[in-house]
Amino acid sequence: MDTSAFQIHPQLAQTSYPLASLAYSELRLVDDARYPWILVIPRVPDAVELIDLPPEVRTPVGIEIDHVCRVLRDVFAPYKLNVAALGNQVRQLHVHVIARYVDDPAWPNPVWGVGSSEPYPEDALASRLRLLSAAFQ
Amino acid sequence: MDTSAFQIHPQLAQTSYPLASLAYSELRLVDDARYPWILVIPRVPDAVELIDLPPEVRTPVGIEIDHVCRVLRDVFAPYKLNVAALGNQVRQLHVHVIARYVDDPAWPNPVWGVGSSEPYPEDALASRLRLLSAAFQ
Repeated sequence: MDTSAFQIHPQLAQTSYPLASLAYSELRLVDDARYPWILVIPRVPDAVELIDLPPEVRTPVGIEIDHVCRVLRDVFAPYKLNVAALGNQVRQLHVHVIARYVDDPAWPNPVWGVGSSEPYPEDALASRLRLLSAAFQ
Repeated sequence: MDTSAFQIHPQLAQTSYPLASLAYSELRLVDDARYPWILVIPRVPDAVELIDLPPEVRTPVGIEIDHVCRVLRDVFAPYKLNVAALGNQVRQLHVHVIARYVDDPAWPNPVWGVGSSEPYPEDALASRLRLLSAAFQ
């Protein structure tokens, strides 16, 4: 598949940091220190729905999403994972994987629309990116 | 896999109607006439996360979720699908597949926590169950 035309949507790029490139997806850390939150963005130009991915991409992207789930669980030991492909605000296909805790600010509700995101302080960002980048190597 | 101990969580059962039994999952129509909304509930006792399903179940469950997405899209022609495994309120593994429109009551936000659910009127329920049951046969 020709992925040369792929670009991360500016709205996703502005609110997250590059974390790792998997074989089929870009991983980005969402800039919200309230939750360990990763975006999985398949490197497929104009993709909108998971079911629109070509079968030879859909399967490995599913495996990459599960891999991100396992890494978030191993690293953060959350009470629950939230995994969601919504795309109402940014149509470019992206899947949220979020580690949730019973004492996080949105619990037990979904995280979207609850309060305002809290950008990582510089040191915390560097250390989280280092931790997670290592986990995805 | 022995699924004899599987039971649908009462909170899911009370807010949805049985729609179809696929090979690995129960499908339920959420009783909220504001959105075409199906729950995919793998028939695995005590399952919580998709990644905890045994590999021989995880793969076909993923295919069933995609099948539900395709049926909802074929039947309702939504502007966007929302697909989410949250499980913060009911821990039993269940995946939401929701057909979204730019003029639905929650757009462009996720549906959870927006207003109150609107139970289907009796006739509309019967006709929707008939339509969707046929689509899953």
